[in-house]
Amino acid sequence: MVRKIILDCDPGHDDAIAMILAHGNPEIELLAVTTVVGNQTLEKVTYNARSVSTMIKMIDVPIAAGCERPLVKEIEVAESIHGDSGLDGPELPKPVVEMCDKHAVDLIIETVMNEPAGTVTLCPTGGLTNIAMAIRKEPKIIDRVQEVVLMGGGYHTGNWSAVAEFNIIIDPEAAHIVFNAPWKVTMVGLDLTHQALATPEVRDKIKEIDTIPAKFVDELLEFFGIMYKKSQGFDSPPVHDPCTIAYLIDPTVMTTKSVPVDIELYGSLTKGMTVTDFRYPIPENCHTQVAVDLDHEKFWKMIFDALKNIG
Amino acid sequence: MVRKIILDCDPGHDDAIAMILAHGNPEIELLAVTTVVGNQTLEKVTYNARSVSTMIKMIDVPIAAGCERPLVKEIEVAESIHGDSGLDGPELPKPVVEMCDKHAVDLIIETVMNEPAGTVTLCPTGGLTNIAMAIRKEPKIIDRVQEVVLMGGGYHTGNWSAVAEFNIIIDPEAAHIVFNAPWKVTMVGLDLTHQALATPEVRDKIKEIDTIPAKFVDELLEFFGIMYKKSQGFDSPPVHDPCTIAYLIDPTVMTTKSVPVDIELYGSLTKGMTVTDFRYPIPENCHTQVAVDLDHEKFWKMIFDALKNIG
Amino acid sequence: MVRKIILDCDPGHDDAIAMILAHGNPEIELLAVTTVVGNQTLEKVTYNARSVSTMIKMIDVPIAAGCERPLVKEIEVAESIHGDSGLDGPELPKPVVEMCDKHAVDLIIETVMNEPAGTVTLCPTGGLTNIAMAIRKEPKIIDRVQEVVLMGGGYHTGNWSAVAEFNIIIDPEAAHIVFNAPWKVTMVGLDLTHQALATPEVRDKIKEIDTIPAKFVDELLEFFGIMYKKSQGFDSPPVHDPCTIAYLIDPTVMTTKSVPVDIELYGSLTKGMTVTDFRYPIPENCHTQVAVDLDHEKFWKMIFDALKNIG
Amino acid sequence: MVRKIILDCDPGHDDAIAMILAHGNPEIELLAVTTVVGNQTLEKVTYNARSVSTMIKMIDVPIAAGCERPLVKEIEVAESIHGDSGLDGPELPKPVVEMCDKHAVDLIIETVMNEPAGTVTLCPTGGLTNIAMAIRKEPKIIDRVQEVVLMGGGYHTGNWSAVAEFNIIIDPEAAHIVFNAPWKVTMVGLDLTHQALATPEVRDKIKEIDTIPAKFVDELLEFFGIMYKKSQGFDSPPVHDPCTIAYLIDPTVMTTKSVPVDIELYGSLTKGMTVTDFRYPIPENCHTQVAVDLDHEKFWKMIFDALKNIG
Repeated sequence: MVRKIILDCDPGHDDAIAMILAHGNPEIELLAVTTVVGNQTLEKVTYNARSVSTMIKMIDVPIAAGCERPLVKEIEVAESIHGDSGLDGPELPKPVVEMCDKHAVDLIIETVMNEPAGTVTLCPTGGLTNIAMAIRKEPKIIDRVQEVVLMGGGYHTGNWSAVAEFNIIIDPEAAHIVFNAPWKVTMVGLDLTHQALATPEVRDKIKEIDTIPAKFVDELLEFFGIMYKKSQGFDSPPVHDPCTIAYLIDPTVMTTKSVPVDIELYGSLTKGMTVTDFRYPIPENCHTQVAVDLDHEKFWKMIFDALKNIG
Repeated sequence: MVRKIILDCDPGHDDAIAMILAHGNPEIELLAVTTVVGNQTLEKVTYNARSVSTMIKMIDVPIAAGCERPLVKEIEVAESIHGDSGLDGPELPKPVVEMCDKHAVDLIIETVMNEPAGTVTLCPTGGLTNIAMAIRKEPKIIDRVQEVVLMGGGYHTGNWSAVAEFNIIIDPEAAHIVFNAPWKVTMVGLDLTHQALATPEVRDKIKEIDTIPAKFVDELLEFFGIMYKKSQGFDSPPVHDPCTIAYLIDPTVMTTKSVPVDIELYGSLTKGMTVTDFRYPIPENCHTQVAVDLDHEKFWKMIFDALKNIG
Repeated sequence: MVRKIILDCDPGHDDAIAMILAHGNPEIELLAVTTVVGNQTLEKVTYNARSVSTMIKMIDVPIAAGCERPLVKEIEVAESIHGDSGLDGPELPKPVVEMCDKHAVDLIIETVMNEPAGTVTLCPTGGLTNIAMAIRKEPKIIDRVQEVVLMGGGYHTGNWSAVAEFNIIIDPEAAHIVFNAPWKVTMVGLDLTHQALATPEVRDKIKEIDTIPAKFVDELLEFFGIMYKKSQGFDSPPVHDPCTIAYLIDPTVMTTKSVPVDIELYGSLTKGMTVTDFRYPIPENCHTQVAVDLDHEKFWKMIFDALKNIG
Repeated sequence: MVRKIILDCDPGHDDAIAMILAHGNPEIELLAVTTVVGNQTLEKVTYNARSVSTMIKMIDVPIAAGCERPLVKEIEVAESIHGDSGLDGPELPKPVVEMCDKHAVDLIIETVMNEPAGTVTLCPTGGLTNIAMAIRKEPKIIDRVQEVVLMGGGYHTGNWSAVAEFNIIIDPEAAHIVFNAPWKVTMVGLDLTHQALATPEVRDKIKEIDTIPAKFVDELLEFFGIMYKKSQGFDSPPVHDPCTIAYLIDPTVMTTKSVPVDIELYGSLTKGMTVTDFRYPIPENCHTQVAVDLDHEKFWKMIFDALKNIG
């Protein structure tokens, strides 16, 4: 059954690949792309979303811009990873796709309220500001959303601090709101996404596809690889965001574990940590789960197939 | 010159009197009444707002409901002060005034964007959830608002903790957002409003007016006085919220002092405190000021006059 | 009846004057002077304590050095107020008074345990590191101490942050330990000590005394006045520490109020605040009280008299 | 070369086994046993230390009692694991070993100062209150201690909260002091000690030894096993504390990794967490390391051998 999703993102190299996977896979129906400050400013990531949509000819999916800053904290962007444009590396096509004139928060709310209850999945791959604003503005969406599958956090892994991940630490209050709402949340965190490495073998297969979008992805990964090597010592870059889409296409692409997850708001060393409680006994009916192990081959095959589908 | 205001409130005994003062004074043009969870649930305070509007025949002012819970904290209401209905004491008229079908956050944004820049003043007399949501959804309103005159906090006085006041402590993150936005904020806090006592002399004058709304106010003050005596030891109840309206009618009704104010989000004893820095030297161009001394007689005369105007 | 005290201090201009008042007043029996890092490093304030003792010929009072750094926080000294030596201004006499070879923590414990129960008062005028260490090492002293009369904090006044005072903020965990121990604590804070101004009239009276110690005090106040004018805008400098001794000589020198006081350890704006709860009802048998109003004339007369006694 | 150690402990089932291992292994010279509130009250754990010493005829090692409560937090004991006595299960022999009349803090300081510099290792297996007090009272010991090898914390494992371990969370400020002092700290945390399981095979080997101390250990493990099964779901109980001694006997019993470790003092979900930073690049000359993998067979052989040596 086709999964209807809203991709709330901040492209972003791996966000772009998530867009490609969502657009190129027949199991996913992309209802909307909404943008949020994160990897770069709202203006830049929104431009990038439009540019990627243009590149992959995804002209029928509405794109709406959301919040230009986090709820409480000041803006912090990930220039060390994504460069000045947020999508450094390839030359971006000039966007021809129009913007939706609604605010992302309203587009999220309206889409969820207009589709049948329980049929829309939210896929946030940036900071959680838009999603938090949406459930505070219209709490009814909590019950109507099918589930939330987000890239962010890590139960044993941090990147922006010893124990916190970028998407969560840039707006911890928003993350607290999203993780504490009574809907099903799947945290696809660094523990999982650091397995989604674009190895030389992966890179070769992408080069072989030899289409304009494949070349675009190749150039994204080239830049991403250099930045991840330099800033975090990775031999091959981890491609975080499409893991959420892959899970929605086929949940067997990863293993998950049901455990309570909450967000630390007050620590001096741990602010923005996705505090995960693996202690015995795990509560029944826990509404959060975390992604654990990735089937690397199956994951990348989905990306290759999506690129081939897009042509 | 007439002041255009949006009253964002949670009626609430003193909110009701603020509505009466705003409606009954020719210097104030009330553009909208928006409601927010606070003294009671959103449903109750919204009902109360409609009921008060009905009572005072304020039928042309749009009323819009806003957020039903704070941004991060769980809901906490002030039943010990305002009773189960949020407006216990008098019998409330059945509301005949219709609701605006917009969300309070959107009504605030649209009103500010549609009026000439610099002409609309926000008067929050409850928690600051709606206002915080509005400036995060549409940051452009920050520059367009004339000023924010709010009831909340206290530089040396607390009521809901040793050093924090109810309106701030129920949503400290929202208060942090509002106080840190670069607009002019006047904090009419407990230091000031604990001077706005409905003394026996005041009560007598209100009784003398002898109209239905005056009787309504008298009954409000009767209940309010009992609750304040019981829970906080006051001989006469402090009537907080109309002080903001009084200041906008005639700023000489109180003295103010320009000082930096910020909101503590992390303290275990001080969370929600409006931390006010009186240390030398006060920075120039400080965008916050606090209310210090009230002209008790001038204040209550405004209330009496408004009641007489309403008839 | 003579009050036996241990003065735990960090001289410091006003600490020096506290030593002079304790030594020069017949109502006070100074059992020990103990030193602690604070206004300057432990080495400097200990040197200063010996130098002041030498200057005023106080040769029989043991002086012991204590903790060289706070419990948890890094060292922060008050060079902007007390200068590089901790006692800048006058030329200090070379110390001839010997040090006690015990650690201050042990001298405090042993003194309290050796004197009759309920007869020794602790007078801390610096950070509370030594006192906190003493009660954690030997909890029995809590019941044996008569009371703690300390200079520090402020219920409505801060100097080292908007709402915190230097002696508390430099070691908030120690202050938390001391204020939460079940002994009687009198907080002589900035609210009181900012009334203990060395006005021109006061300065003149000290000059008239015309002894070496009086000249020393005059030079201390000269430097202190310049620093306080420059850094905090005072026309006359507040002489904090001797207020504690004055209270022990004659409690009518100030008014006090019994109210709960606790120490904020976690705030980002309020860390080290002495959170004082004036809300109704004040709990009975409250073990903390705060100093409110000073009898300026009575206070300074004690200082003049002490100087005259010392000769 | 024989390692001179001070064992600072709170017996405690696994502390008792640590005492046995230290006493029964010729590579360890136990200079002192000091006690601290933790698994049970100071009075109880001190009694237990004397009782275990009596049982194993360790009559020449001074035992000194230390702090009866944590620095800042209130007392919390581990009755759910260690029972009412702190050493429930076996019948304890009546202690005949005398107490040292010094405070543990002073015995630690004097022992370190009297032995040649760089020859004494501190082995804390309880809360870190005594050690923290010792380095704040006599900072010179920091340079003179050879290293600190402690049981506590966990880089990816918690037991008393989702992410904190009992020994650290009961006195986080003390732990902060110890981990931030510039000495070498080896954290033998739950990640390692949850591998030190007393499996049925281990239990059988201990039963075979058939001495009074071996029977005592068997009874300790019987009780410990029941409690760990019940409260934390373990099939075999983890025997934490002797892992520190085992490491000092032969560091090849475990692998370690040099990484920065700091203590969270402020989190609402993470207070007392040993925040460990595995991010690239690991700083050179990092003064902390964490224990990773245990050689289970080698570890238990040390315990068996010690029991045989004691006889």
